[in-house]
Amino acid sequence: MSWAKSETPADKFSETLTPDNAVLAMIDHQTGLLVGVRDLDPMLLKNNIRGLTAMAKVLDLPSVITSSYPDGPNGPIMPDILENLPDAPVINRQGEINAWKSPAFKQAIEKTGRKKIIMAGLVTDVCLLFPALSAVAEGYDVYAVIDASGTWNDTVQQAAIVRMSQAGVKVTTWGSVLAEIMDDWRSPKGMELGGVLGGHTSYGWVYNSFMSQAAKANKQ
Amino acid sequence: MSWAKSETPADKFSETLTPDNAVLAMIDHQTGLLVGVRDLDPMLLKNNIRGLTAMAKVLDLPSVITSSYPDGPNGPIMPDILENLPDAPVINRQGEINAWKSPAFKQAIEKTGRKKIIMAGLVTDVCLLFPALSAVAEGYDVYAVIDASGTWNDTVQQAAIVRMSQAGVKVTTWGSVLAEIMDDWRSPKGMELGGVLGGHTSYGWVYNSFMSQAAKANKQ
Amino acid sequence: MSWAKSETPADKFSETLTPDNAVLAMIDHQTGLLVGVRDLDPMLLKNNIRGLTAMAKVLDLPSVITSSYPDGPNGPIMPDILENLPDAPVINRQGEINAWKSPAFKQAIEKTGRKKIIMAGLVTDVCLLFPALSAVAEGYDVYAVIDASGTWNDTVQQAAIVRMSQAGVKVTTWGSVLAEIMDDWRSPKGMELGGVLGGHTSYGWVYNSFMSQAAKANKQ
Amino acid sequence: MSWAKSETPADKFSETLTPDNAVLAMIDHQTGLLVGVRDLDPMLLKNNIRGLTAMAKVLDLPSVITSSYPDGPNGPIMPDILENLPDAPVINRQGEINAWKSPAFKQAIEKTGRKKIIMAGLVTDVCLLFPALSAVAEGYDVYAVIDASGTWNDTVQQAAIVRMSQAGVKVTTWGSVLAEIMDDWRSPKGMELGGVLGGHTSYGWVYNSFMSQAAKANKQ
Amino acid sequence: MSWAKSETPADKFSETLTPDNAVLAMIDHQTGLLVGVRDLDPMLLKNNIRGLTAMAKVLDLPSVITSSYPDGPNGPIMPDILENLPDAPVINRQGEINAWKSPAFKQAIEKTGRKKIIMAGLVTDVCLLFPALSAVAEGYDVYAVIDASGTWNDTVQQAAIVRMSQAGVKVTTWGSVLAEIMDDWRSPKGMELGGVLGGHTSYGWVYNSFMSQAAKANKQ
Amino acid sequence: MSWAKSETPADKFSETLTPDNAVLAMIDHQTGLLVGVRDLDPMLLKNNIRGLTAMAKVLDLPSVITSSYPDGPNGPIMPDILENLPDAPVINRQGEINAWKSPAFKQAIEKTGRKKIIMAGLVTDVCLLFPALSAVAEGYDVYAVIDASGTWNDTVQQAAIVRMSQAGVKVTTWGSVLAEIMDDWRSPKGMELGGVLGGHTSYGWVYNSFMSQAAKANKQ
Amino acid sequence: MSWAKSETPADKFSETLTPDNAVLAMIDHQTGLLVGVRDLDPMLLKNNIRGLTAMAKVLDLPSVITSSYPDGPNGPIMPDILENLPDAPVINRQGEINAWKSPAFKQAIEKTGRKKIIMAGLVTDVCLLFPALSAVAEGYDVYAVIDASGTWNDTVQQAAIVRMSQAGVKVTTWGSVLAEIMDDWRSPKGMELGGVLGGHTSYGWVYNSFMSQAAKANKQ
Amino acid sequence: MSWAKSETPADKFSETLTPDNAVLAMIDHQTGLLVGVRDLDPMLLKNNIRGLTAMAKVLDLPSVITSSYPDGPNGPIMPDILENLPDAPVINRQGEINAWKSPAFKQAIEKTGRKKIIMAGLVTDVCLLFPALSAVAEGYDVYAVIDASGTWNDTVQQAAIVRMSQAGVKVTTWGSVLAEIMDDWRSPKGMELGGVLGGHTSYGWVYNSFMSQAAKANKQ
Repeated sequence: MSWAKSETPADKFSETLTPDNAVLAMIDHQTGLLVGVRDLDPMLLKNNIRGLTAMAKVLDLPSVITSSYPDGPNGPIMPDILENLPDAPVINRQGEINAWKSPAFKQAIEKTGRKKIIMAGLVTDVCLLFPALSAVAEGYDVYAVIDASGTWNDTVQQAAIVRMSQAGVKVTTWGSVLAEIMDDWRSPKGMELGGVLGGHTSYGWVYNSFMSQAAKANKQ
Repeated sequence: MSWAKSETPADKFSETLTPDNAVLAMIDHQTGLLVGVRDLDPMLLKNNIRGLTAMAKVLDLPSVITSSYPDGPNGPIMPDILENLPDAPVINRQGEINAWKSPAFKQAIEKTGRKKIIMAGLVTDVCLLFPALSAVAEGYDVYAVIDASGTWNDTVQQAAIVRMSQAGVKVTTWGSVLAEIMDDWRSPKGMELGGVLGGHTSYGWVYNSFMSQAAKANKQ
Repeated sequence: MSWAKSETPADKFSETLTPDNAVLAMIDHQTGLLVGVRDLDPMLLKNNIRGLTAMAKVLDLPSVITSSYPDGPNGPIMPDILENLPDAPVINRQGEINAWKSPAFKQAIEKTGRKKIIMAGLVTDVCLLFPALSAVAEGYDVYAVIDASGTWNDTVQQAAIVRMSQAGVKVTTWGSVLAEIMDDWRSPKGMELGGVLGGHTSYGWVYNSFMSQAAKANKQ
Repeated sequence: MSWAKSETPADKFSETLTPDNAVLAMIDHQTGLLVGVRDLDPMLLKNNIRGLTAMAKVLDLPSVITSSYPDGPNGPIMPDILENLPDAPVINRQGEINAWKSPAFKQAIEKTGRKKIIMAGLVTDVCLLFPALSAVAEGYDVYAVIDASGTWNDTVQQAAIVRMSQAGVKVTTWGSVLAEIMDDWRSPKGMELGGVLGGHTSYGWVYNSFMSQAAKANKQ
Repeated sequence: MSWAKSETPADKFSETLTPDNAVLAMIDHQTGLLVGVRDLDPMLLKNNIRGLTAMAKVLDLPSVITSSYPDGPNGPIMPDILENLPDAPVINRQGEINAWKSPAFKQAIEKTGRKKIIMAGLVTDVCLLFPALSAVAEGYDVYAVIDASGTWNDTVQQAAIVRMSQAGVKVTTWGSVLAEIMDDWRSPKGMELGGVLGGHTSYGWVYNSFMSQAAKANKQ
Repeated sequence: MSWAKSETPADKFSETLTPDNAVLAMIDHQTGLLVGVRDLDPMLLKNNIRGLTAMAKVLDLPSVITSSYPDGPNGPIMPDILENLPDAPVINRQGEINAWKSPAFKQAIEKTGRKKIIMAGLVTDVCLLFPALSAVAEGYDVYAVIDASGTWNDTVQQAAIVRMSQAGVKVTTWGSVLAEIMDDWRSPKGMELGGVLGGHTSYGWVYNSFMSQAAKANKQ
Repeated sequence: MSWAKSETPADKFSETLTPDNAVLAMIDHQTGLLVGVRDLDPMLLKNNIRGLTAMAKVLDLPSVITSSYPDGPNGPIMPDILENLPDAPVINRQGEINAWKSPAFKQAIEKTGRKKIIMAGLVTDVCLLFPALSAVAEGYDVYAVIDASGTWNDTVQQAAIVRMSQAGVKVTTWGSVLAEIMDDWRSPKGMELGGVLGGHTSYGWVYNSFMSQAAKANKQ
Repeated sequence: MSWAKSETPADKFSETLTPDNAVLAMIDHQTGLLVGVRDLDPMLLKNNIRGLTAMAKVLDLPSVITSSYPDGPNGPIMPDILENLPDAPVINRQGEINAWKSPAFKQAIEKTGRKKIIMAGLVTDVCLLFPALSAVAEGYDVYAVIDASGTWNDTVQQAAIVRMSQAGVKVTTWGSVLAEIMDDWRSPKGMELGGVLGGHTSYGWVYNSFMSQAAKANKQ
């Protein structure tokens, strides 16, 4: 396994995210790990995970869920993920810390035939960092969604961001991913994705104000 | 109208909150004001407002909703509040900034016959501060729910906290109010209120882990 | 001179601010002191001072400006204040640090016949704190506008807030003062004061959005 | 039950803490609640709880431990507390949120005959706040140890501090309590208590440096 | 469209900004988006946007303004921008999220014949990030003005900075851009640009103090 | 010993600080404790202690220095204090944690015949808090200089501030104390005290700019 | 000595950490330096250092300890390190600041025959930064453990992180290193390493809750 | 002038700093700019600048001082710099913002024949950033001392750090530079440089404790 920086990033990075070239990987968002997150408010983290998976749901984006021994203290996968992604395969790993080392997980990714992976994981410095580095080393284009991931404290978050960026991972956030894949408000799922954004950011209130006024104008 | 510190706080404060002695007042949680809040993350604020009103719903707690000219830029009331409190009177004030100066609002409070007011408002330094001071001055026992309220920045929040506390208002938070009124896990609504707490804090994840393990134990 | 806590706050505090019972005191907002402020971003401080004095201008509120030896390193008074309050007397003190000890300043306040003083000063822990304590000790009702004042760092700000509150000063912010004195959107100056608020907070953008949509509705 | 501010604080507060007039109450430091704390780093919180209970162990200070339904999701009491206080009664409450409302808990306190309670609890805004208010209202002198307690976020911590202080509770920290009860380095347990302080703060490193040098001097 | 890191940055970056080689692009500074910014105080953001566009005005710098469906909830462009840049083309995009994908926008940039783009946009992680990456990939030298842009919170800002820097975008601030393009205080517009800097930073107060003293010296 | 809130604050507080009614107490500023301070940057703390004692030196203010077993790990008194206050008695306590319980210390204070004590101490929650509470309880007017003191972290600082303020101590900062005792720039030591302020705050740079320009004007 | 970025990182970085390819270097964790750390809470730092060295102990990982003139003010090595690594050579350097320049230290590393160095040091910007840069320049793969190191303040930490990352050092944290080297929960030391993680993070509380429930299930 | 990343950093960076290969450049530390710094406490900044220049003084390190029109509002150079570096040439630029564009400044650097420049400047994003980029582009090895520089706020500091690091500048801090150039405590100036470090960090207090104890041991 190699974590070296890919030698030919230009090709790999020459396209933006589309519903047809990307796969979502949700790694170890288990309740026993979620309680340990302290770089983001837990309710904001919950909101962001919901937003990211709701985006995938709207787009029928191929998705892979994995957990690390859910019968143990790590606990079950956050229910909201399973609700939003009912058809995604769930790989319960028996011991591999780096999900990329789980043949089942890797095959699930490969099976989609896609080379761009939108990844989030708990804890950031382990469950996101390791597969992100591994995938980049094998030529994948990895979008590490830092705000749908979480870890012990701000220092750990910063170290993970710096190390991922150094290795060629694209460090990003869920709203940015949604906008990149949405591409155009007039795209088939444009308005629906806008609704997901509004439902999970303060933009929803801007939309409420607008629609309330529009409704009144229409009544006149 | 008097904002003076009440002279005989001992009597007023001699009981804790119960479902029978308290009324909830939700003041000016309008979408045009919500976007201006910067002392709390907006998604955390939304979560807290949902939690506070869900508590009132579980308890059938008398509640009063008011807004300041919702046809103007302040915009409509946050929909989540109306969903959780469908039977609460909604007082759309025509100009009074201090809701307490609105006869309709004050009568709605008085009609409940209760002397303890759980209050939240946007923005904290105006829509919560003024009625909180006014109500305390008239002998009410006011619980100002600082984390279901919000304002321009941290400095403004701090000034509002200090001024309310100085005047005898009880500055508190939504989780603390829920626990005080719940009183005992064995109370009629105890488990349901616990569910509200879990649904709006990281405690829910602790509960998920526990129940998952309990389910497995039962299967054995 | 006494800084003791007033014995009978109830009477003094029994009214809210009105255009008829309040005077504004702007103390030592000089350019050589402004550069030293580090508890607020300087551009936010400038904005807040403009907002507070614009409010006074709209209301023709009696105002007193004072400076501490403006020919020395403290420098001239911030020009925005003089522009907004062209008719206010300017007391250039020759040495008194506590403006309240300057007979000219105190007489300027007394001449207004008003017992409620809206005070802001640089630096907070000196130029606002001392006259605030002195005025409260003499029976005035003092509103210390903490965010139109400023000082060396957050620790100093906090100590000043705590000490003023302990002594009976009302610690507040410029937006809260504006709303208290405005009282009702239908008051004679209501819309104008709302414009001041919008011009100096993010509320102005909410208003822009609203008016833009209203203009379109009217065209239809 | 009354939460009013005690009318005669002077008598109650006229002594400092001694090993003979104080009792320690450790309330609901259960593992399912500890994971929710976000106003202090969890490892610092663990350290502080260890320090506080180690102090009680050195002094044989009467102590009462209580938990809220430890068979449920709240989980077991933090083991370190039971190790440091092996002889303390453990009151497992069946439902009362405010420990003061548990007759067994209150009797355990009363049985010590002491009127000064050193209290810590999780979460601060519930498990510490409520019994602190209740005990003060009944004439006890309560030391609320804010840094051996913990809660959801900084805003909640601040609200709890302000409300407790308003009601006459002494808001304090574990190191301050240790020093107050130690009183004099020459007291019987002085050096041992100093060791507890050093073992749980950076002071221990100062002590290491000192002793290392002293050892060398002695060898010469 | 390619977001790959440019292969030959040396040529592209071999000159500093001048009034003759740069174009300003102001992207989606619309009132419905501005209210969502939480990585900068909104009044500081407004100040910075004013400063940046005032700089362009002084220099008659070619500028392009674009908005994303201003008839919808995003709302109208911040009026200050239109005031400072009355002659700049305004491209109202009908759906493209990445402005670079709008032929009209791209042509407006190309029409200037300039290869250095000073870019600011709301929200940073979308409206600035995407066109910055796209332009760099096509060989432009992009100055991303992070403090005249804004986004949901600090984590999002940091991720956007790291990702832009990784891709070869120059992350910068409005004051730095002004100084780079000004180059020399004796340049034709040197003093005027200094005035823009002073009018939008605390440097203005330093200037006030200096000029006040100079005026007195001249009178002598 | 009583820590109760003084019953008649009005008399005690009816005067401001003067060179004739105040005494300075510097408590336990020892190098082994200084290294533990984490609520203020250590270089800022050093600067503030220098400023406070330089003020006392200029005024020949009666001062008392005390240390807690300086032959042990607490180490020697910070040399800057001894340099600025060469004539102050130094009470090396043999064990009393609360300096007020040291007869030698208390007598040194009493010997000055002054009832206003300007106090600073390390660590804040022990060496400042305890004597401040004790002195207030015995009728002294205590100015607790929070920024010439220091402690383990921000939470501890806040708890100490709240508890001191609750008990009637005046929580303040060194610059505020200097200005209060200076009273007027024309007082005998006015200019010298201004120099102390300038030498220990950014005001010194304002002064440098002013004097440089004045020197040039004089040359003309 | 060269600090240049290695030319062929791909080879060097092509493996992950294993118990067989890594060596731990603990540099200058001396008590006189530990007290100076202000970018991490000292108790959290102590906890992290304990965790990192406990990991090495569990794995019998070759380790090298070094100190800089421990007979001087830097003081002795933190005792916890010596306890966890009783067999590691301790190199007491006589003057070299950069440990890599000490032949004894470098030989101790070389003797292990390993090319991956897990490094931590106090202060970060000197004792970690210099040997990290030197080792990378000589072809080693360096993991700089930023949270088992520490320095004067956050700005210094950030500069050190940026400079190390620029030079090809992997900036990381102790928990991430433990997980990378553990690799799989089923590895020979998997459970034991999990215990180290739990004993030094809030994960331990999750484990306590789980085991408590499991114990009850087993009893049934 | 080119700001491109140097093509052959390996050669340039292959040595560490020595008293024989480095030159210090102090750029625009003028009192009118110093007052504008808000990313560091001003007293900490003053301390750091003193420390950095004291280091140069001890080493007789070639140094160049420059200012930007000191007769104008920027004001005179901070006096401490001139005191520590009395023999350094002072280049008063007449207008060039980027000091590197001043022939006199550049010649003063070139005259030293040294290729490593230790640079600090106010404001960071202009007076340090521009010459750092220019010098790196011409093959110099630049150490940008971020904590002896300063700017408007944290966001501006971060942008400057990221941009300098991207371009190959070494972002560092004054203590790290001192340690790198000192190299060994046994070097000719080793103890003297250690004294500079101790005099400007909390390490000085560690030294005080040590020497106090050593003095006692010697007396025995």
